[in-house]
Amino acid sequence: MRIVSGMRPTGKLHLGHYFGVIKNWINLQDNNECFFFVADWHALTNKYKDTSDLKENIYDLVIDWISCGIDPSKATIFVQSAVKQHAELTLLLGMITPKSWLELNPSYKDLKFNLFFQYVRDFLLGKGIKIEEDTIRQIVHDSFYHKKEIDFEYLKESLIKLSVDENLSNEIVFNLKEGDIGKDIDTYGFFGYPVLMASDILIYKAQAVPVGEDQLPHIEITREIARRFNNLYKPVFVEPKALLTEASKLLGTDGRKMSKSYGNTIALSDDEEQVNKKVLSMKTDTQRVKKSIPGRPEVCNVFSYHKFFTDQETVKQIDLKCRNAEIGCIECKKILAENLNKFLLPIREKRKELEKDRQLLDKIIREGNEKAKEVASKTMEEVKEAMGLMF
Amino acid sequence: MRIVSGMRPTGKLHLGHYFGVIKNWINLQDNNECFFFVADWHALTNKYKDTSDLKENIYDLVIDWISCGIDPSKATIFVQSAVKQHAELTLLLGMITPKSWLELNPSYKDLKFNLFFQYVRDFLLGKGIKIEEDTIRQIVHDSFYHKKEIDFEYLKESLIKLSVDENLSNEIVFNLKEGDIGKDIDTYGFFGYPVLMASDILIYKAQAVPVGEDQLPHIEITREIARRFNNLYKPVFVEPKALLTEASKLLGTDGRKMSKSYGNTIALSDDEEQVNKKVLSMKTDTQRVKKSIPGRPEVCNVFSYHKFFTDQETVKQIDLKCRNAEIGCIECKKILAENLNKFLLPIREKRKELEKDRQLLDKIIREGNEKAKEVASKTMEEVKEAMGLMF
Repeated sequence: MRIVSGMRPTGKLHLGHYFGVIKNWINLQDNNECFFFVADWHALTNKYKDTSDLKENIYDLVIDWISCGIDPSKATIFVQSAVKQHAELTLLLGMITPKSWLELNPSYKDLKFNLFFQYVRDFLLGKGIKIEEDTIRQIVHDSFYHKKEIDFEYLKESLIKLSVDENLSNEIVFNLKEGDIGKDIDTYGFFGYPVLMASDILIYKAQAVPVGEDQLPHIEITREIARRFNNLYKPVFVEPKALLTEASKLLGTDGRKMSKSYGNTIALSDDEEQVNKKVLSMKTDTQRVKKSIPGRPEVCNVFSYHKFFTDQETVKQIDLKCRNAEIGCIECKKILAENLNKFLLPIREKRKELEKDRQLLDKIIREGNEKAKEVASKTMEEVKEAMGLMF
Repeated sequence: MRIVSGMRPTGKLHLGHYFGVIKNWINLQDNNECFFFVADWHALTNKYKDTSDLKENIYDLVIDWISCGIDPSKATIFVQSAVKQHAELTLLLGMITPKSWLELNPSYKDLKFNLFFQYVRDFLLGKGIKIEEDTIRQIVHDSFYHKKEIDFEYLKESLIKLSVDENLSNEIVFNLKEGDIGKDIDTYGFFGYPVLMASDILIYKAQAVPVGEDQLPHIEITREIARRFNNLYKPVFVEPKALLTEASKLLGTDGRKMSKSYGNTIALSDDEEQVNKKVLSMKTDTQRVKKSIPGRPEVCNVFSYHKFFTDQETVKQIDLKCRNAEIGCIECKKILAENLNKFLLPIREKRKELEKDRQLLDKIIREGNEKAKEVASKTMEEVKEAMGLMF
């Protein structure tokens, strides 16, 4: 089966990425024709203002992939912006994609919600106002989804209720609504990224796309665009199926979803010391304030980590000893840290090797780009023929 | 000065194009570095459903240009879609262009108005309902511009007042509002064509763009996009100036603006017989029902044509003789037809020559494309460097 998937180059990968995406890719690459791409153009949809680290992020992403086991001799690894045909196809597909399909795209609103939320959080933080992040998320969420349109009045009132000064609340709302934030986020490219995504997928005639549940609407739009093109002109495109991948069950060090914006990640590139420190600072069963109190592994985030990194027999023993107050949290964490480091060691070593060999990296990327271009340009020939374009 | 301008390949050119655009281009090409392009991607924004004649239209357009005197040894003639860098830059500029700039773009609404108007006209025509085209245009215009949003209720009521069946009126409004027409017209590409246009202009660092008054908002958006890019990254782009060109004073054969949709054109490719027929059927001073009644040249469309195609001395004589009832309309038209044919003869002959020599045409287009690509790819290098893109 031909499979396409991509990731945005937004910094070094963490364990959440590994168990959410990479592990799945590694499983797929053996028996499928895989195209894995660095979505650098996509990164611009919400991060166009500072692109100074884009190049390093691209290298980092490829280094992470290969260090984890993505094999360039099995899968085609390439950088989106190197295959200009994606831009050409995006332009052409844009001509046949009704604006309303994009307006109805739930993930458009979701992404916008995230950006609005981040703005409100950072604004309050910048003013020294301390409100629980989850509370902020909740009120932004409610002002977004209670009504058909974004309810800015509700947002303002909620902020005031949380004792935010009225002037500041007004400023936040104004910036989201009419000021630079609202405008800056809401670009033409951001609005149309499902078209770009459709082009990324369709240009390789991918039969399947591994996605999380939240990405399903994109696959649906991609299928609709393919169908519309095929009906208008000629059946050039394959309608890709969504290959639903389970979300990673590995949580962040604080028990929430692992995410860089929560500061609760363990990066694949973290060194031994960093890992030890992070694991030692993890919360355990809050009721277990001293070793003599029996623990409840089922509510302990450290224990949930053990299931990923510690051998089954040891996991069983820890479970028992914890319940019997025979093992302390620090000892338990030390075992985890050791195993986690054991897991990360080969990735880290491969990382170091690759970091030193930019030439090899460039060669891998160049060869991947060439393979991708070959397939993409073949599809584009068919597209242009179908549409009656001369060039 | 470097100048960029383009035309959509939508069929053979007529005299309105000649006096509105081409004549101006011919004047510009001697003392400026001109890039004239066939805007085939733009043609897709509102004509993506049937592209079967696109290729022939491209050739026709280039043939018309050269036959009129656009000289490939002076100006660079090329086809937009052959220079893929336009698509790449469109994608990148789209990332920094606020959606609101496009929503506020008056010509977006104008183009939409035209398409809606055409739909209503064709729908009524198809149902055998005869309403003056100008009346239809007026009510669609009013429903578009009286309020901030399109006033569909007003449109429906106006149609019913004109004795259109209520069901049909409802159907029209439904199709415009929620049916295929509204959706089909309102594509992502159509919405974003000012971004494509900005990229067409900026990629050549054009200092000036010859435009009609109605195109001024596009130049303004182009300048804003250039400014935004230069501020965000590095000063790569030139802010182009609008070179305001007067609208052609030559009207259609029926006295309205010359336009293919009015069926009142004289094509540059019309043969002698067609021209004679069209000129003979032109309306003159309606009060002059016979030769013996003195005419009023100042209200006669045929007389206004003479000013373009007949020598000044003869024009003076015709004016005098017409007022004195010494020359009849048929004789007057015959003189015009003869002069018009004299004017069109060299264009027609050059046309025939080029039509036979597809190889020469291909060579001209290929060489123009190469020249354009060279400039465009140089600009793209700067763009990518400024944005920190790797490829």
